[in-house]
Amino acid sequence: MAEVEDRRSRLQDDLEQVTELLQAYEARIEARDADEADAASQLSDSPELAKLRHKLDQMHPADVAYVLETLPVDERQVVWDLVRQERDGEILLEVSDAVREWLIEHMETDELVAAAEQLDADEIADLAPDLPPEVMDDVFASLSVEEREQLRAAMSYAEDSVGALMDFDMIGVREDVTVEVVLRYLRRRDELPDHTDQLFVIDREEHLRGLLAVNRLLVSAPDALVGSLMASEGIVSLRPEQDAQEAALAFERYDLVSAPVVGAAGKLVARVTIDAVVDFIRSRNESEMLSAGGLREDEDLFAPVWDSLRNRWTWLALNLVTAFIASRVIGAFEHAIEKLVALAALMPIIAGIGGNSGNQTITMIVRGLALGQITSGNARKLLAKEFLVAVLNGLVWGAVVGLFAFVIYHKWQLGAVMMGAMLLNLMLAAIMGFAIPITMHKLGRDPALGSSVMITAITDSGGFFIFLGLATIFLV
Amino acid sequence: MAEVEDRRSRLQDDLEQVTELLQAYEARIEARDADEADAASQLSDSPELAKLRHKLDQMHPADVAYVLETLPVDERQVVWDLVRQERDGEILLEVSDAVREWLIEHMETDELVAAAEQLDADEIADLAPDLPPEVMDDVFASLSVEEREQLRAAMSYAEDSVGALMDFDMIGVREDVTVEVVLRYLRRRDELPDHTDQLFVIDREEHLRGLLAVNRLLVSAPDALVGSLMASEGIVSLRPEQDAQEAALAFERYDLVSAPVVGAAGKLVARVTIDAVVDFIRSRNESEMLSAGGLREDEDLFAPVWDSLRNRWTWLALNLVTAFIASRVIGAFEHAIEKLVALAALMPIIAGIGGNSGNQTITMIVRGLALGQITSGNARKLLAKEFLVAVLNGLVWGAVVGLFAFVIYHKWQLGAVMMGAMLLNLMLAAIMGFAIPITMHKLGRDPALGSSVMITAITDSGGFFIFLGLATIFLV
Repeated sequence: MAEVEDRRSRLQDDLEQVTELLQAYEARIEARDADEADAASQLSDSPELAKLRHKLDQMHPADVAYVLETLPVDERQVVWDLVRQERDGEILLEVSDAVREWLIEHMETDELVAAAEQLDADEIADLAPDLPPEVMDDVFASLSVEEREQLRAAMSYAEDSVGALMDFDMIGVREDVTVEVVLRYLRRRDELPDHTDQLFVIDREEHLRGLLAVNRLLVSAPDALVGSLMASEGIVSLRPEQDAQEAALAFERYDLVSAPVVGAAGKLVARVTIDAVVDFIRSRNESEMLSAGGLREDEDLFAPVWDSLRNRWTWLALNLVTAFIASRVIGAFEHAIEKLVALAALMPIIAGIGGNSGNQTITMIVRGLALGQITSGNARKLLAKEFLVAVLNGLVWGAVVGLFAFVIYHKWQLGAVMMGAMLLNLMLAAIMGFAIPITMHKLGRDPALGSSVMITAITDSGGFFIFLGLATIFLV
Repeated sequence: MAEVEDRRSRLQDDLEQVTELLQAYEARIEARDADEADAASQLSDSPELAKLRHKLDQMHPADVAYVLETLPVDERQVVWDLVRQERDGEILLEVSDAVREWLIEHMETDELVAAAEQLDADEIADLAPDLPPEVMDDVFASLSVEEREQLRAAMSYAEDSVGALMDFDMIGVREDVTVEVVLRYLRRRDELPDHTDQLFVIDREEHLRGLLAVNRLLVSAPDALVGSLMASEGIVSLRPEQDAQEAALAFERYDLVSAPVVGAAGKLVARVTIDAVVDFIRSRNESEMLSAGGLREDEDLFAPVWDSLRNRWTWLALNLVTAFIASRVIGAFEHAIEKLVALAALMPIIAGIGGNSGNQTITMIVRGLALGQITSGNARKLLAKEFLVAVLNGLVWGAVVGLFAFVIYHKWQLGAVMMGAMLLNLMLAAIMGFAIPITMHKLGRDPALGSSVMITAITDSGGFFIFLGLATIFLV
């Protein structure tokens, strides 16, 4: 059983070996403390680097990508220089966006052209946004007419559309041929495209007529007709301009491995495979987590500090503005705080719990929208429920914080104001927590992005205003 | 091209039709304003329900699940009663955890047993946690010896392990037979298991020898030997007790459709397929989003209010405690605030931005840990970088808030204290934002869960303490 290994732990081992070889190499450089020229010359002759190059050659492109993402920039550069040029393309496809940008910045035009020429049209389209225009021109020039057509098609669709996920590497067959003919046709190629779980049955005008599962082919009699074996009812087909999220839901819902992409007039234009869908799901979830964490985009762990700062400033600036507003709201009630300084100590509680509760509502609604579970039919019922939950929470937690205030400051009026403010702020949180994502969705924007900042801003300023306002009326 | 439809929009149509039929049915009930008994008797004879049952019979189980998740509870009950009993099982597998619990609560023991008996061992294992013990006993009794073994095996592994994802529906072949023999063997079955992209090559002791891609089979000569066609080098194989997250990474990394699960001594025990992995990825991301939003678990959109409250209280209570602590920190400085009330208006800015910046660091580290990019080798470098970013942010944004304070309150000392407090709180945020997830990871806990609450608590109380402390020393 030596052949079968636990790939994950092997990956850790690979990383360790690479790091050790790199350290040995750096040690040698320092020992020799050679000048630039010598150091450069050693690149080729150092035995560690020879070992390292050999190691990298054996590794799966995705694993090389993992190593590159994990290494600090200087060591990353050494490793990248050792990767064989014909593998550059497939590795660029595997690394994270941030690291890809870094690698491309550090490559020559001719290297980039050579790398891109190793790839299929749809893969080049994935790299295209990061490639300098002069590189794309050379690449275009090097492609066949058909490939150019495909590249133009793939590049013409938005990043989050089916068109951005599709590839053109598929097998079409005719309805009126037998299994035997299809098998002979397949045997003529030494291998089938990855993820070929079904063949696409098309007519002479390339209209999609049905789908023939490869496994169906395996278990069928040689003289059976494709038309009699293919599925044609209720097929899942996608349109290139469709939202990739819908494609992901379809793959998940119907457990697909591949699906046809059909253009105008039902012509088969491409296919989408599960590996592209999984990458999309992963990267989409990542960007949701990142924006939830207040980061604008995927960040290279070892990005230059300046890039990190740029990546984080958008949100810090946004939060600063909302914080200033909240601060001015408090400022408007300074006379009340002067009279009763306890208000200053208590007000963050009202704001904090309000934000927490509002974010709970937002999370529910955003998820419901993403899964298409919220309809005009049930929206009102949902709002009513969220509001009821808020009222009950307001009474329960309002009582708790009211008691807290009373115990510490021995003023029952203060406790009452706390409770009232908590109740009102949670009601505000529920209404806005429902309204914000629904509105963004109606406006065609992604409710997952930014909703949380908005609700927090509202429940902060709103909470301070409600609490200090009530206090001014009833206490001071 | 009438057969090929856009499945997603069709799903919306299905939902509309179902809702209309339900409304027509309810209208009829009200019109007749019959008593319970009559109402019950109508269930069978009403033409709307007949139409509805027919409609449901035609729908994919995943689509029926979608409809059930989207309907309010009373209508959900009507639809569930109309679903054919032999489909109950497959639909229970498709619905969200929360809705599944609800459905199971509303089913009789014998219905549940009947539903479970429709399923494979690994599918029953998925339902097991929600099924009452007496049901599981009856199910066990109804299984064959082999199925019982499989069910026990599948149930014996943790929820987030490979064992929970695996199924037993796979095809093994021997090394020493020809392609022709394999094909004849396959033709004997009328269909292959779903997601059969490869056959598992095993010896007499069921040790995994290699993998034979189905597509390889298709394009090979009939007299070729399996041993000569199979892949045996660097195969990706999983262990049942392995973390499911590692399996997901492997499927994503190496674009797998299925992978063998190998037990002690390299014996083939089961396989994992991409559809199970996609469901795992989706549900894992969901629980991350939910916990980030302060929800304990997946919540049925139409859960009884009481369930919703229970689901949300854990986090509200937790935040309340941290808010109380922050409040007492402020309380300790009331004398300073009395002397200079502006402090009350300015302190939320320091706390807010600190929390924001800390969450950015946490997000980076949690993501790095999840992708296995953070090693003992690069951890120190990372901390240094995050700290540097924090210092620079502290100087820039500190200057901004300092200016803000000066402009509004015309006290340059106040501005200076603001700047100093911002700088210190962002440094605190960076160190804790790094330390918290790393520590949780070392303790074997999921750093994605709870880190955010902790960092916010620290930057709130810490921010108030730093700001008010500096103010007490230098201002009042």
